[in-house]
Amino acid sequence: MSRAYNFCAGPAALPEAVLRQAQSEMLSYQGQGLSVMEMSHRSEQFVDIAEQAERDLRRLLSIPEHYSVLFLQGGASLQFSMIPLNLLGESGCADYVCTGSWSKKAIKEAQRFGDIHVAGSSEASRFTSAPAASDWTVRPNSAYLHYTPNETIHGVEYLETPSLNLPHTQPLVADMSSTILSRPIDVSRFGLIYAGAQKNIGPAGITLVIIRNDLLERSAYADKQAQGG
Amino acid sequence: MSRAYNFCAGPAALPEAVLRQAQSEMLSYQGQGLSVMEMSHRSEQFVDIAEQAERDLRRLLSIPEHYSVLFLQGGASLQFSMIPLNLLGESGCADYVCTGSWSKKAIKEAQRFGDIHVAGSSEASRFTSAPAASDWTVRPNSAYLHYTPNETIHGVEYLETPSLNLPHTQPLVADMSSTILSRPIDVSRFGLIYAGAQKNIGPAGITLVIIRNDLLERSAYADKQAQGG
Repeated sequence: MSRAYNFCAGPAALPEAVLRQAQSEMLSYQGQGLSVMEMSHRSEQFVDIAEQAERDLRRLLSIPEHYSVLFLQGGASLQFSMIPLNLLGESGCADYVCTGSWSKKAIKEAQRFGDIHVAGSSEASRFTSAPAASDWTVRPNSAYLHYTPNETIHGVEYLETPSLNLPHTQPLVADMSSTILSRPIDVSRFGLIYAGAQKNIGPAGITLVIIRNDLLERSAYADKQAQGG
Repeated sequence: MSRAYNFCAGPAALPEAVLRQAQSEMLSYQGQGLSVMEMSHRSEQFVDIAEQAERDLRRLLSIPEHYSVLFLQGGASLQFSMIPLNLLGESGCADYVCTGSWSKKAIKEAQRFGDIHVAGSSEASRFTSAPAASDWTVRPNSAYLHYTPNETIHGVEYLETPSLNLPHTQPLVADMSSTILSRPIDVSRFGLIYAGAQKNIGPAGITLVIIRNDLLERSAYADKQAQGG
């Protein structure tokens, strides 16, 4: 059986060793007599798998303790709604950098929920470049600043994490679907990092969110608003 | 290798023949040199798989042509929000039958988005019974009527599809996560049927929605509202 050379961006090729292990455990995970897909999500075995996955990721990315790691459904595109719904907070406004198809989609979705300002855009040059972070116009009252480090459709990438001009201290939110785990990143410079699994992490179906714990509290505000409180 | 007797409600046991096929194709699906998880969602091979799954389901459940079949992410619980967000329409109100944990969760989520009336409830008897459909109080202007045919936590089930008292013609919406494919159903009596895959269909990760095509148009209204139009 020969394996193809697979250069798809995502769904992407998986390591052969991983596929062989999944294959060997397909009818019985660690001699339990059932596959991981047939196992209760509340079982000790499955809780171990989930905890190990989080530990491994925290080690690989040096994720600080004051960040939570969430494994979610719905794809990175569902985060286009979940992020403004949960993080806009009382100000109701956020800033977005527009550098290609993915950030355009994120902006369009966020505009349903709040006052969205485009802090920088290269649309006029058909996304053949990306505006320098020093030129981004960030509003002092915005709840967060969103950007897309790697625009896979237009082929434009920020190689470094942007340094924002002080005194702006908005949390930086990044769609890292095609960036994550490709290099070390300083997680502490971000408020929230999200990434669909199918490009750089594993098979499609899981979306990773790494969020600074203080931002989780904004969800409580969003929840209260939704209930008319 | 011996297989366990697995009576979990969900994630549930999968047929051994299916696991063996997945196992044999883990490194190369139909001699392509890559697994199905590594394949482009736009490839001919994957589109064939998706179309075959829909054809098989339409045949098994005799789904009429004026219904659409959607394979979605997010679990049946995400439908607790998606259904009111998309179907409430201009009336902004819907009726729900409350027969246990799952319908209570569906009601709580719907209350964020509209005027929700409990058309019948057995909460006073601690969900040891289910109110007869003939006793449900359905409002003439409600956008739809939601019920949960099988409440797996409290162990209460409607064995027959309820016959509503005329002249109410609201579309019936049913959470069939633990009902679907266990028996023939007359799909034409429902407006929308939804079901998480992990109990009766297959591994966790997919949610099935079967929706009458005219109801899809209500989403356009919801979309316009969301955009402030």
